[in-house]
Amino acid sequence: MSSDRESLRVGVDLGGTAIKAGAISASGQILERRSIPAELDRGPQDLADRIANLARELDFGETVGIGVPGLLDREAGRVIMSANLHQIDGFALVDAVAERLEIPAGNVALENDANVAALGEAWAGAGREQADFLLVTLGTGVGGGIVLGGEIQTGTGGLAGEIGHICIDPNGPLCGCGKHGCLETLASATAASRRARELDLPEDLAELSAQATNGDLRAQELLHDVGLDLGRGLAAATVLLDLRVYVIGGGFGAALELLRPGIEAGLEERAYGRVAEDYTILPAELGPDAGWVGAARIGQLRGQENS
Amino acid sequence: MSSDRESLRVGVDLGGTAIKAGAISASGQILERRSIPAELDRGPQDLADRIANLARELDFGETVGIGVPGLLDREAGRVIMSANLHQIDGFALVDAVAERLEIPAGNVALENDANVAALGEAWAGAGREQADFLLVTLGTGVGGGIVLGGEIQTGTGGLAGEIGHICIDPNGPLCGCGKHGCLETLASATAASRRARELDLPEDLAELSAQATNGDLRAQELLHDVGLDLGRGLAAATVLLDLRVYVIGGGFGAALELLRPGIEAGLEERAYGRVAEDYTILPAELGPDAGWVGAARIGQLRGQENS
Repeated sequence: MSSDRESLRVGVDLGGTAIKAGAISASGQILERRSIPAELDRGPQDLADRIANLARELDFGETVGIGVPGLLDREAGRVIMSANLHQIDGFALVDAVAERLEIPAGNVALENDANVAALGEAWAGAGREQADFLLVTLGTGVGGGIVLGGEIQTGTGGLAGEIGHICIDPNGPLCGCGKHGCLETLASATAASRRARELDLPEDLAELSAQATNGDLRAQELLHDVGLDLGRGLAAATVLLDLRVYVIGGGFGAALELLRPGIEAGLEERAYGRVAEDYTILPAELGPDAGWVGAARIGQLRGQENS
Repeated sequence: MSSDRESLRVGVDLGGTAIKAGAISASGQILERRSIPAELDRGPQDLADRIANLARELDFGETVGIGVPGLLDREAGRVIMSANLHQIDGFALVDAVAERLEIPAGNVALENDANVAALGEAWAGAGREQADFLLVTLGTGVGGGIVLGGEIQTGTGGLAGEIGHICIDPNGPLCGCGKHGCLETLASATAASRRARELDLPEDLAELSAQATNGDLRAQELLHDVGLDLGRGLAAATVLLDLRVYVIGGGFGAALELLRPGIEAGLEERAYGRVAEDYTILPAELGPDAGWVGAARIGQLRGQENS
């Protein structure tokens, strides 16, 4: 095996519509990207075939990491429950992929999608120089991944980082999780679109942002209010963990500069003893690559632990 | 030096009214306790004299740990700001004590009081068998210390664990910190007394608890409501860190069994995807010893790092 090949890591990011994968060098340089349709209805065995094929095409070396949305049994390498990929509920994905690649199961790592994205940003993105930060992904929901001392925090049951389900307003909208006023009911891309529609503003967030940038006061005010709710949620992470660095990603993360004054106001409103200057709020850098990059990294880390 | 003496650790817990100190064996057995009046008005040099004397009386061995309420500069061994002990604001306590004891400054550790209490419970109390937990101290305020993987989380600025300042109700009472509806405005001992007084119930919490135990429905209901607010606050730690173990201490912690149904209801109300069975809520075991025991432990840990 050449040293070039040894220094290459492969990650896979499994989503509801696409499987993204890629190869990255040990120093964090992206070498190659792939994306194929998820086609989950073809079943879990077929999915394992296609993941293994992607890894082989990318000349995977010794380890592969896989990011999956949902609740995982990391020790068994199994997906316990995935809201958007229910076709793989209960499937022992790690064993299936390891068998096809003829590598030990310990060299295939499985991790939550929000956590791999955070690790991707920590390793090769906006969190490169940050020991401690929270990655917040503003999309259909609000995802989160906590990095402390350079390491992902998964929590006792593997559900840590769910900033989207911090209660912002006990009288707020009903969340998909069954609780009221979760951050994601107020500050996800979906929530921002809904709030825009209610005010007869464009529900397309690129359009809404353009309108705010062009000086529309009502669009600016709405984005301030959405940022305010986001900051109120981040305040919980500040108070509990004294986090000072937030990395904002996801499609709606593109509006960060319009959201920023609201975010700072929300943090100041609810985080005891801190002022805006205490915070660093950064845009995520890896965009749609964050997941597979972090998966590649975690594959490498787990492989080292096992070797 | 005998092996007995080597295996002994000394900790000091500096409070607004008393300085508690003690010696504990390496296996966590309490050997000796002291308590002297704080008398902070005698000034910081006199305070350092008395702390050094206590350590010598306890035959301190090689390291001493000191717990202090307030914001610390750990590297400089200095108290930046202490709300209740403003007489030592800015004082280089570590150097002053190390000099008097003729030991290297690296062998005197300074840590926040809530954090040393959490470490005390982690080492020799209710958290002995728990890798991850949150210690909640119900007193004048609500203090907190987070232990993950057996280690205290201090956070970027040393302010982590401040569960008392998680916002429970944005329209709630004004907190001493200047924010509204912080957990401690609703569930501290002070807050419980105030809520009792407002309902013409006994503001003495032992009396209130006795009344609830004897079947008084109004007293039971109030303690349920206080527990509910506490559970709502703990939910933030569950959602963010997936913590499953809570250790409840402080004077008002004695009412844990009366608070428990409310705590579980509050957690269920706000923590996504968990039910009461997912949690372990334990009474703290060390009572007023938690602080100095944890300080002794941290002195030992820092001493090992430096040796």
